[in-house]
Amino acid sequence: MNEPAGPAGDGGLVRVRLEVAYDGTAYAGWARQVGQLGIAEVLEGALTTVLRLDPLGRPPRTTVAGRTDAGVHARGQVCHLDIPRCAWAAVVGRSADPPERALVRRLAGVLPPDVSVRRAELAPPGFDARFSALSRRYAYRLTDDIAGPDPLRRHELVHHPHPLDVAAMNAASRSLLGEHDFAAFCRRRAGASTIRTLLEFSWRRRDGLVVATAVADAFCHSMVRALVGALLAVGDGRRDEAWPGALLAARVRDPAVTVAPAHGLTLEEVTYPADDELAERASSTRRLRSAP
Amino acid sequence: MNEPAGPAGDGGLVRVRLEVAYDGTAYAGWARQVGQLGIAEVLEGALTTVLRLDPLGRPPRTTVAGRTDAGVHARGQVCHLDIPRCAWAAVVGRSADPPERALVRRLAGVLPPDVSVRRAELAPPGFDARFSALSRRYAYRLTDDIAGPDPLRRHELVHHPHPLDVAAMNAASRSLLGEHDFAAFCRRRAGASTIRTLLEFSWRRRDGLVVATAVADAFCHSMVRALVGALLAVGDGRRDEAWPGALLAARVRDPAVTVAPAHGLTLEEVTYPADDELAERASSTRRLRSAP
Repeated sequence: MNEPAGPAGDGGLVRVRLEVAYDGTAYAGWARQVGQLGIAEVLEGALTTVLRLDPLGRPPRTTVAGRTDAGVHARGQVCHLDIPRCAWAAVVGRSADPPERALVRRLAGVLPPDVSVRRAELAPPGFDARFSALSRRYAYRLTDDIAGPDPLRRHELVHHPHPLDVAAMNAASRSLLGEHDFAAFCRRRAGASTIRTLLEFSWRRRDGLVVATAVADAFCHSMVRALVGALLAVGDGRRDEAWPGALLAARVRDPAVTVAPAHGLTLEEVTYPADDELAERASSTRRLRSAP
Repeated sequence: MNEPAGPAGDGGLVRVRLEVAYDGTAYAGWARQVGQLGIAEVLEGALTTVLRLDPLGRPPRTTVAGRTDAGVHARGQVCHLDIPRCAWAAVVGRSADPPERALVRRLAGVLPPDVSVRRAELAPPGFDARFSALSRRYAYRLTDDIAGPDPLRRHELVHHPHPLDVAAMNAASRSLLGEHDFAAFCRRRAGASTIRTLLEFSWRRRDGLVVATAVADAFCHSMVRALVGALLAVGDGRRDEAWPGALLAARVRDPAVTVAPAHGLTLEEVTYPADDELAERASSTRRLRSAP
């Protein structure tokens, strides 16, 4: 199944850990959709080329830490894939670079400029990009400047046409911290828990931008953008500071919450425990996420 | 001719000062070229719409601090234009905003997302965007990471495929500071001086980028990119630290200097003297620039 296969894994496979950055503008999201390319597809195609895998065979399958939606960006996305040991050795062996650099350099030569592999290395035993993760950190970037976004950053900035009260947004955000059922901010899926631990949700104004930082053990689908949408209503005075907490307590999706636009959102970082805790973390996460 | 016309100028004109930002990727530069749009043309078209000027008449003409080349960006470009007093009053009078905000907000509604007017205000008497300027500050942004540029900033980052020695680049850059004939780094134009005062030329490594800052009273055509090209040869070890100084002393264009790509360059800031020195600065600059 999805069992980690480390460098010493059976079947002659090794597990490779990749850190990936992308401009999500042109993509259906991490996963493909009918008629539109996904980041995973582009990456798996580049890996097929670079690792000289059989292009007519089953493409290498990536497992990802954060399945970002259409238009969402990443700077520190993490994924893994299992490849034949001989394919890894071939890339490394043909290069004067250290192994990690060899794969990064080759991928940079074939990937389009809006997708980039920042690091590539053999995964430690027990590593699973999705289930071993301790936390995900997202940034949401806005400007309330009447002039609109800096043109050079327009692909990752959302223009909010009303002045934002960052202090009020921070006060309201604090009421959402901790372990809760975030059903009010999640698109419900059968058999999946909506209980998450929100570790940080804060706002700051810097260089003319208003930037939200959201850190949780994991986020359910559209959760960050629903949280941001609720807090924008507090920031521009449409709702009071108590509203987001009341939404949370109601535990049902409220149509008054507008999901904020995708292009303001960037997955910045995924964190993992120390190597000797990777396998235990993966199995405890699997148990938790399938809880009712 | 190009005499400043302040708010009290004759002919019923007022002079407006604009701060402009743009992503230069899609443009021929500040000025139009045959078959390709310039930033000025886009801006002048938006001003015609917003100020309700006669679209069949002569479009408003902007005078700019830095005539950026094709593909070069700006965050703090400055220009001025003279418009009928009644056109200014009409924009201001129809809005609940203060005058400066009214024009910025209206322009944001009609400009494409890659061009943005950040500020708009009546110019003080004697102001000339080009000739009153004291200095221009440019940034040139590179990465020598083998993974290439961050995809979200790829439009303003140049990938240098060899490791750069920033300390060597700083040492070599210092030898270029001060007032010199920069003919070695300029495209020569008949009747124009190539004497400039380079106030700062420094390099620093930050957040995985290598960023050059270049400040001068003014730059001649392609000067920043030629300086950057020469210093890159020092940074990656093709030339020694003494080379840029020797080029400068030779005072002729050297074909060994590669002009660095346009898309790494951004005009960040233009500075002006206090209001009561604007007119004097403009006339002394005019005298200097036409010196042999």
